[in-house]
Amino acid sequence: MCELLGMSANVPTDICFSFTGLMQRGGGTGPHRDGWGIAFYEGKGCRTFHDPGPSVNSEIARLVQRHPIKSHIVISHIRQANVGQVCLENTHPFSRELWGRHWTYAHNGQLTAEVFSWPVDTYQPVGTTDSEQAFCWLLGQIRRQFPQPPADEMQQQRLNDLIRQCCDQLRGLGVFNMMLSDAERLYVYCTTKLHWITRRAPFGQAVLSDADLSVDFGTETTPNDVVTMIATMPLTTNEVWQPLHVGELLVFRLGLIEAHLGRQE
Amino acid sequence: MCELLGMSANVPTDICFSFTGLMQRGGGTGPHRDGWGIAFYEGKGCRTFHDPGPSVNSEIARLVQRHPIKSHIVISHIRQANVGQVCLENTHPFSRELWGRHWTYAHNGQLTAEVFSWPVDTYQPVGTTDSEQAFCWLLGQIRRQFPQPPADEMQQQRLNDLIRQCCDQLRGLGVFNMMLSDAERLYVYCTTKLHWITRRAPFGQAVLSDADLSVDFGTETTPNDVVTMIATMPLTTNEVWQPLHVGELLVFRLGLIEAHLGRQE
Repeated sequence: MCELLGMSANVPTDICFSFTGLMQRGGGTGPHRDGWGIAFYEGKGCRTFHDPGPSVNSEIARLVQRHPIKSHIVISHIRQANVGQVCLENTHPFSRELWGRHWTYAHNGQLTAEVFSWPVDTYQPVGTTDSEQAFCWLLGQIRRQFPQPPADEMQQQRLNDLIRQCCDQLRGLGVFNMMLSDAERLYVYCTTKLHWITRRAPFGQAVLSDADLSVDFGTETTPNDVVTMIATMPLTTNEVWQPLHVGELLVFRLGLIEAHLGRQE
Repeated sequence: MCELLGMSANVPTDICFSFTGLMQRGGGTGPHRDGWGIAFYEGKGCRTFHDPGPSVNSEIARLVQRHPIKSHIVISHIRQANVGQVCLENTHPFSRELWGRHWTYAHNGQLTAEVFSWPVDTYQPVGTTDSEQAFCWLLGQIRRQFPQPPADEMQQQRLNDLIRQCCDQLRGLGVFNMMLSDAERLYVYCTTKLHWITRRAPFGQAVLSDADLSVDFGTETTPNDVVTMIATMPLTTNEVWQPLHVGELLVFRLGLIEAHLGRQE
């Protein structure tokens, strides 16, 4: 299993605090020694950092912890390899371009080998993971049904439905917890374990589970900031994180839930 | 004008020495204050670092200088903006996937606005530069004529010819110095200024032009290493760099010239 971390915010926000917690799980408090990566969206631009070594020892990870990069969407992943050897091309998040936007994706879980027989055309995997194969298939499905981006809210709802249906299909092959972004929205799909929390005024203090660190968000934010964090397991000990349920797709935009699909009561 | 730096090597090699020289030109000894980026290939994997600020002040640039990343192909770029505002999505190098390989590209020069009317289909620009538009057009041409990678040497020669013809067409729109890689080869095309040097045994000392630094490659290498560096202007003062000529395309593989097209005597 791997760990996922995502953020959606209405103002450019750094993720140093949460990333510090996550990185401890990469060979420190957790078993995920097989690489890590992170994607930061800044407007339409996206920069990524990838390292095939354990995050807890990574100099690049230390830079990302120390050096605040302000972003409105973040996707991060630390890996415990199951399918595909440990190497750079198998390190999440994966990226492709569609509609003149950078799409970024990370997956936690494992799919049966059947996924490698699913058709891919425009987007071909570079590495050998089930995760990247699933991404290429998923983005190909989106491209086929949406050669252009949704023009209005109704089309966006159709896109949300499509993404959820594709995720449901992938869930048929195993565990599929996923984060996906097109620079505007953050799509989060759950099979087993994902939790989220929205922080807004009045901001309080948060205490990390995995490192001896707390932060007072009140001193770091303005009253209008809205920041949602999503993680495999809650990253803090003194806040209430909401679990996602099996088959749920949450669509975040500017820190808030824009759409909520597939809740099974 | 911007500055380009490339490397092709037969063994994984770090580029810390040359990158230290290049980074000085990003707001230090040179005027290129508008961002920088670098792509490192490690096998089929590729990791990139991008920063829209001046390289000479960049904490990420300092990491790349200090932290040796061993690679067999590198493409780096520091930018002095002409077309397109200074922002992350306009920061080279640009990347797209074709044939299940990461293609990476950086451009020095300026093209007329006509390039924006050239057809792009599969690959759409994310930012607003002439450079990325040219890349999307070029890679689209390659994809159309080579839906699959070249199967033999003759097809590879046809691909080289195609790349050179496309570059010649782009040169008709202005200055087009370019580096392009598909993880196997490094294609380098010259309109105005590019220089290269191949270092191999017996290795000697090299002294940077832009920083008070020298290195004795003899202590850093083995007798079989072959490393070619390509840069807009020579980076060292005590070595002889070869200029490329107008309309020349050099194809490097494992540190050596594999093909040489378009030499105009």
